[in-house]
Amino acid sequence: MPVTRMRRAVAGAALLGAGAIATVAVASGGSPADRSAELRAAIDASKPRNVILFTGDGMGDSEITSARYYAKGASGRLAMDALPFTGEDTTFSVKPGSGPDYAPDYVPDSAATGTAWATGRKTIDNRISQGPSSAANVPGDNASYRTVLELAQQAGKRVGNVSTAEITDATPAVLGSHISQRACQGPANTRSTCPSETKQAGGLGSIAEQLVDHRIDVILGGGKSRFTQTLDGSSTTVLDRAQAQLGYRYAGNATQLAGISSLKNGPVLGLFNDGNMTTTWTGPSARRPAASAPYYGAPVRCDETNRATSAPGEPSLEQMTNKAIELLDNKKGFFLQVEGASIDKQDHAANPCKQIGELIAFDDAIAAARRYQRTHPDTLIVVTADHAHTSQIVPEDASGGTGLPTGYALDLQTKDDATMRIAYGTAGGPTPPATPDALSQEHTGSEVRIAASGPQAANVNGILDQTELFSILVGRGRGHSHGNPGHSSNHGRHGSHGARPRGDRGHR
Amino acid sequence: MPVTRMRRAVAGAALLGAGAIATVAVASGGSPADRSAELRAAIDASKPRNVILFTGDGMGDSEITSARYYAKGASGRLAMDALPFTGEDTTFSVKPGSGPDYAPDYVPDSAATGTAWATGRKTIDNRISQGPSSAANVPGDNASYRTVLELAQQAGKRVGNVSTAEITDATPAVLGSHISQRACQGPANTRSTCPSETKQAGGLGSIAEQLVDHRIDVILGGGKSRFTQTLDGSSTTVLDRAQAQLGYRYAGNATQLAGISSLKNGPVLGLFNDGNMTTTWTGPSARRPAASAPYYGAPVRCDETNRATSAPGEPSLEQMTNKAIELLDNKKGFFLQVEGASIDKQDHAANPCKQIGELIAFDDAIAAARRYQRTHPDTLIVVTADHAHTSQIVPEDASGGTGLPTGYALDLQTKDDATMRIAYGTAGGPTPPATPDALSQEHTGSEVRIAASGPQAANVNGILDQTELFSILVGRGRGHSHGNPGHSSNHGRHGSHGARPRGDRGHR
Repeated sequence: MPVTRMRRAVAGAALLGAGAIATVAVASGGSPADRSAELRAAIDASKPRNVILFTGDGMGDSEITSARYYAKGASGRLAMDALPFTGEDTTFSVKPGSGPDYAPDYVPDSAATGTAWATGRKTIDNRISQGPSSAANVPGDNASYRTVLELAQQAGKRVGNVSTAEITDATPAVLGSHISQRACQGPANTRSTCPSETKQAGGLGSIAEQLVDHRIDVILGGGKSRFTQTLDGSSTTVLDRAQAQLGYRYAGNATQLAGISSLKNGPVLGLFNDGNMTTTWTGPSARRPAASAPYYGAPVRCDETNRATSAPGEPSLEQMTNKAIELLDNKKGFFLQVEGASIDKQDHAANPCKQIGELIAFDDAIAAARRYQRTHPDTLIVVTADHAHTSQIVPEDASGGTGLPTGYALDLQTKDDATMRIAYGTAGGPTPPATPDALSQEHTGSEVRIAASGPQAANVNGILDQTELFSILVGRGRGHSHGNPGHSSNHGRHGSHGARPRGDRGHR
Repeated sequence: MPVTRMRRAVAGAALLGAGAIATVAVASGGSPADRSAELRAAIDASKPRNVILFTGDGMGDSEITSARYYAKGASGRLAMDALPFTGEDTTFSVKPGSGPDYAPDYVPDSAATGTAWATGRKTIDNRISQGPSSAANVPGDNASYRTVLELAQQAGKRVGNVSTAEITDATPAVLGSHISQRACQGPANTRSTCPSETKQAGGLGSIAEQLVDHRIDVILGGGKSRFTQTLDGSSTTVLDRAQAQLGYRYAGNATQLAGISSLKNGPVLGLFNDGNMTTTWTGPSARRPAASAPYYGAPVRCDETNRATSAPGEPSLEQMTNKAIELLDNKKGFFLQVEGASIDKQDHAANPCKQIGELIAFDDAIAAARRYQRTHPDTLIVVTADHAHTSQIVPEDASGGTGLPTGYALDLQTKDDATMRIAYGTAGGPTPPATPDALSQEHTGSEVRIAASGPQAANVNGILDQTELFSILVGRGRGHSHGNPGHSSNHGRHGSHGARPRGDRGHR
C-alpha cells in the first residue's frame, strides 16, 4: 500500500473511535450512552466453575500500550481490553531477613510475585511458594504455602499450567512446587543449587519433579532439558518417571499435542523446546547510538513469521490454551494458568519486536479463552501481570543530542504507518555498552493492570495487592490470604504448621 | 525512632493488607468477601449535578505507585485509590498536517490531551481547544471546539478552574480558551507568538484574556505575570480589566482568598505566584553517577515543609479546592477542574521529592472533594492524568556498574524505612550531562489510570480513549464527541461550522 493511501487509512483508524460512533450518535440525536446498566449486568456474584488466569510476565501498562499501538493501531483494541472489570495491582515483595518483620522490596521478581498471587502471601525474590525466612527448607517462615492449584485439586477440579517459558520457570513453578531457589528447576540443578532440598536429602525435589508429582492434568510449555535431567542416584529422567510411573502422556511437538483429545489415558505433559519456546515475532534489539551517529535508523517493521517458520513444531500459546481448555473442561470445573512469559524476557533483552509479538500471542490466547467463556459463562477469566517492566514509549521526533533517551531505543513503524520509539534504560550504568545484548534490563515497581470477566470478576477494581488475586482465584472474593493455613499438605511432606510472615499477625 | 523499631513497624505495615483482614476472616470462619454487591451498589446511573475533574498532569501509574510507597507505605492507600470505578485512558494526539487525515502522535503534550478530554476531539500538540490544521486561526480543521466548561455554563452551572501551574498553562487553558499555540498565555506573549490571534487582529486574544472573558466563576492558580501584561495598544492589564470591567474579585494570597466566602460580589480570580506555584515538598534532583563514583549516595528523606515555609502566602491545592467548592456549590450544580500540575513539571526536572510532594498535595485535594461528595452524593468525581511520564521505580540493590540505570536516579528512604530508587532516562542522549538540570525529561506514551466515583462513574472501566472522558464529563456516558458541533459559539467569534479531523467521518 503506498504511504499516502496508508496514511489516510491510518488517520481514519486513529480517529475512528470518535468518528464511527459520532455518525450514529448525531443521527440518534446525541442520546446518552451511559454504561451503568451494562456494567451492572456484567456483575455476577455466583461462584465460578472454571477459573483461567492469564499472567503476562512483565506486562506493564507501557508494554500493553506499545503492543496495541503497533499491532492494532492507536484506536485499535486488544482482546484483553474488552474485559469489563479493571484495576491495578501492587507487586512489591519483601527483602531477605530473619523475621519476624520484613522490609518491602519495591521491585520484585516473578518468583516472589508468583508466590503472592498463587498463595496469597508475600515472600522474598527467588523463593517459590515458600515463606521469606533466610533459613532454607525448615518449618517456620520458609514453610510451604498452599497454592491456588493445590486448592483446586482438593476441590476435585482439574488443573492446568501453560507457559511459553520453561514450564519450570518461576511463574509456572509457583503453582505446583515449593523450593527456596527458583534456579532449582531440574534434579541436577537442585543437587548443585539446593542440595538440602533434593528428594535424596528428604526434600520435595526439583521444580520439574514436583510439577509431575502434583499430577497436574495438563502441563504445556518449554523446559524439556529440565525433565531430561536424571533423578537423584539414578539414570532415569524426570520425563521417564512421569510417563512410566505417573502415567503422563507426552507430546514433544504441535502435531503430537493435537493428537491428544482427552485425559482418559492419563495427564498430559507437553514440552516443546529444551529451553524457552521460540518467540512468535523477531526483529532487531534496541541500540544505543554513538555520539558521532546519534540516531536509530529507519523505523522497523517486525518479522511476524518467526516461530511459524523457524520452529514449526512448536505450538502457539493460543493452540496450547485451546488444547488445555479442551482437555480440562469437565463438570466439576478446572483451574488453568496461562503465562505469556517472554514479554518479560524480551523486555530484559531490550527487543521491542519480540516483546510485542509475545504480548500479541498472549492476547490471542486470551481471545481463545474468551470464546470458550461465551459458551461457558461460569468461567472466571483474570488477566494481569506479575510486575511492571522497563520499556517506555518516548518521543520519536528527536534525532540526536540530549533529546534522545539515555539508554537503548528502536523506532518501529506501526500499523498506522507512524513511528513509535521504544526505549530501555534500566540497565547499562553510567558507561553503557553499545548494545544491550550482554545486559538484562530491569523490572520496575509500578502497579500493573488487572482485568477480569465472568463470575466474581467484579472483585477486580481499584487498587488491589497481588495477594488479593489469590483470594479472588479461590472464590473468596477480595478477602486476603487468611484462609491459607500457611503450609502445603500436598504429599504430606510438611508436617508442622508453617509460619507466615509475622507482619501478617496484624497492624502494629 | 531507631531504625530497628521502625523496621518492625514498617514490615508490619508492608504486610498489613494480608494481616489485618486475615485476623477478621479467620475469626469469621473464612467467609467469602465477594464485592459484587458492593460494586453494584456503587453504580448510579442518575445525572450528576456537580462534576469535579482532577487532572494529575503527567501522573502515570509509575508516579502514583512511587508516591504511594514513599508517603503511605507499601500497603498504604492514597485517597484516589478509594474510587470504585477504574480504567486506563489512551492519550495519543495527532501529528501536524493539512488533513484530511492525521497520523497519530504516540507521545502527546498537555495541550493536545487537554483538548481531547475538554472537547472530545484530537488535535496536535501545542494547540488549545482547536483543530489540528497547520493553518492558524481560520475556519476549518483548526476551528475552535466547544469545551466541557462552556457547555456547563450554557446549562446554567457555575464553573471553576484551579491549578498549581500558571492558570494560563495548557491544562487549565483548554477549558476556557481557543488558540493555536499554548505559549500565547498573556497579551504580550500573543503579540509576539500568535500575532494573528490578538484581539487587535480580530482574534480571541491571549489565554489570560479569554479565561476572564469567559467569566469563569472561580479561577485559582499561578501565572500572575500573564495577567499583568498590558492589553493590545493599552496600558491597562488583563488584571485591571478583569476587576474593573468584568467584575472579578482578586485574591493575591491565601489570606485574601480565605476572606472571600461567596460569589455574590462577582467571580473570583486568585493568582498566587507570578509563575507556577511553589512546590509543596523539595529535595535534590536525580543525578548521574560518574564511572569513577558510580553511586547515588545515602537515601534521601524529602523536605515536606517547602511551600509552607518558603511561600506561606500561597494556598495549598487542597485549600484552593475547598474554597472553589464552597464558592461554586449551588442548586444548579457546577463543573470544577483541579490540576496537580507540577507532578509533570518535576518529572521533567527529574526531581523525585518535588514530584511526589505534588502528587500527595493533589491527593489531599481529592480527599477534600471526596469529603464534599459524602454530603453531596450527586457529585461525579473523576481522577486521571493527561499523559504518562518518565519516572520509573528501579532496583536499588545495584551500587555501580551496568546494573545501574543509564540515566539519572535518586534513592529515597520511604515511610517503610526502605530504599526506593527513582530513575529518569528519557532525555540526556548518548552523552548525557552529569546533572539533569539543563534538560527536560520527556513524556511517555503509556495509557494512564482513570478513576471515578458518583453518578455515571460506572462509565469508567476498561480501556477508554481520552476523548471519551469528555462524553462522561458532559453526561453523555461513554459515547464519543459526536454531540460536539465542532466549534465554539462562545463570544460568537467563530461564525462558520468548524471542521473536525476528517478521520472523524468514519472508518475507511
